[in-house]
Amino acid sequence: MDYVITDSNVSPLIASIPEAAPWISAPRFVIPAGEEHKTPATLAVIWEWLADEGANRESRIVNIGGGMVSDIGGFAAATFMRGIDYINLPTTLLAAVDAAVGGKTAVNVGELKNQAGAFRMPSQVVFSSAPFATLSRQELLSGMGEMLKYGLISSPGLYLNLRRNDLFLDRSPALLPFVKECVSIKERIAAEDPTERGVRKILNFGHTAGHAFESLSLARGAGLPHGIAVAHGLMVALILSHTVEGYPSKELYTLAEVLKNFFPPTDTACRDNDALIGYMLHDKKNSSRTEVRFSLLSDIATPKIDVAVSREEISTALDIYRDLV
Amino acid sequence: MDYVITDSNVSPLIASIPEAAPWISAPRFVIPAGEEHKTPATLAVIWEWLADEGANRESRIVNIGGGMVSDIGGFAAATFMRGIDYINLPTTLLAAVDAAVGGKTAVNVGELKNQAGAFRMPSQVVFSSAPFATLSRQELLSGMGEMLKYGLISSPGLYLNLRRNDLFLDRSPALLPFVKECVSIKERIAAEDPTERGVRKILNFGHTAGHAFESLSLARGAGLPHGIAVAHGLMVALILSHTVEGYPSKELYTLAEVLKNFFPPTDTACRDNDALIGYMLHDKKNSSRTEVRFSLLSDIATPKIDVAVSREEISTALDIYRDLV
Repeated sequence: MDYVITDSNVSPLIASIPEAAPWISAPRFVIPAGEEHKTPATLAVIWEWLADEGANRESRIVNIGGGMVSDIGGFAAATFMRGIDYINLPTTLLAAVDAAVGGKTAVNVGELKNQAGAFRMPSQVVFSSAPFATLSRQELLSGMGEMLKYGLISSPGLYLNLRRNDLFLDRSPALLPFVKECVSIKERIAAEDPTERGVRKILNFGHTAGHAFESLSLARGAGLPHGIAVAHGLMVALILSHTVEGYPSKELYTLAEVLKNFFPPTDTACRDNDALIGYMLHDKKNSSRTEVRFSLLSDIATPKIDVAVSREEISTALDIYRDLV
Repeated sequence: MDYVITDSNVSPLIASIPEAAPWISAPRFVIPAGEEHKTPATLAVIWEWLADEGANRESRIVNIGGGMVSDIGGFAAATFMRGIDYINLPTTLLAAVDAAVGGKTAVNVGELKNQAGAFRMPSQVVFSSAPFATLSRQELLSGMGEMLKYGLISSPGLYLNLRRNDLFLDRSPALLPFVKECVSIKERIAAEDPTERGVRKILNFGHTAGHAFESLSLARGAGLPHGIAVAHGLMVALILSHTVEGYPSKELYTLAEVLKNFFPPTDTACRDNDALIGYMLHDKKNSSRTEVRFSLLSDIATPKIDVAVSREEISTALDIYRDLV
């Protein structure tokens, strides 16, 4: 028996997603929309709901929604009766290429994002382009930020295709093949290193600075979408890849063009460098308090993980970033 | 850095446990004693505490206590930052031979025991006989119920030693070698089948009827300790092993002697058979609603798992059980 978990934004749209037809009448748990509901309290209510519904070890959870839904629904599946199967049907471009794949599940604890969770692969991911039609421009760009990452870390051809096309702005079903290419890159890397001890860290390319932009924006009450922050984080990571690992400078300009043409700016200035570096030092993936470990590239599709970078090098890279974009 | 999780009964005793010396000054989270605190709400507070204390991926949890502490502390370790290392230092005989070993962690959800949890092996289990000195006779018998199980399912020599000795009633340090023999049996079986798809089910020998005795006792407000209920459940399982799988009848009497000599009775009568069978049918390990799947033995140390047994066979076995003990 299947049990659907979704949120209040997506639930009314499920009937319009052809790929969701098998679950249209399944028991449905609707979380109020918004990251602020990705909490231990919501998780506990999901466990109670599954128990009340009579779910057992052969039951399956079907997460229909964005990353918030698959993160908490996947965590519920990873832990209900110590683990049952689950399926993700992502309804945002960002979730399709990021949260829905790879088996990292979580809830936030207080202010800390994804502080508690589990690694558990979905038994299946169902892709649909139908929900893309309702996404805002910001949501499309947010997905594109992550997609550019996959091109940079693993596929020069994909990177070239993405930056020469703006088909993502058309919400076109023609996006799906690119989505699936990103997913296969993520699946391959996640399968090599499911618990993120080594190579999987390259999936965080762009995320160290990206999270810092996201946190600073949140602190100012603005709320830069994740994938847009990551797109800018990619720029910072490429600059560090150039200065620290000799990544060819030519490619810096290709990404800067994409950022300038499509993406809203981060609105940061020199005086923000210290705050941004502070966020990077306190990232949960960083164990040192004096240097920051980055995932970088020595060339396109040639990753280096755990590269220690000093405050000064980061500060310089942030200055160059502002010059370029 | 290590973080201790314990409960309000055990916390004052930690200073008197020589093996706990390395953690005497470690940050300590004290759960109010009692199974009723093994909840999602307590788990969430532990996550918050770890985050507030600055725990990171290299941190380690040290659970000092009985099964309640290692169940919830182990689950916190399995999920904090998607999994950190943990150590168990069991302080009851029951926890030493059961919950502390094998990596099954959990919390209760509402009335449902261990409904949410994770499989994660402790990185180390530290054994001490010091806390045994403070255990009640009931707590010692509760541990012995599980120990007899290990003898029956895996080691005729251990079974013979246990039933010919009453050293457990002396709270003697001489108990430790027997504890460690039980632990090595459990570790071997759990390692073969960590997520309980097959052979590990034999560790539930005696538990199907045992849980039913436990539930009936709880419903009557009595509260039979887990291992004592299991000891009686072993008797029912041995009778079924005899009637269904041809287990030699002689051995039924050896266990009946131990039960009569040492263990308090379950106080059940013929009229309770239906209620007991009802509990067995609704056990979370049982997927059918018309028959009950038992772990049985065709001979000592020769397990059979997933044996389907009818209501009538169980009812007859319960009648024989009452005749024998």
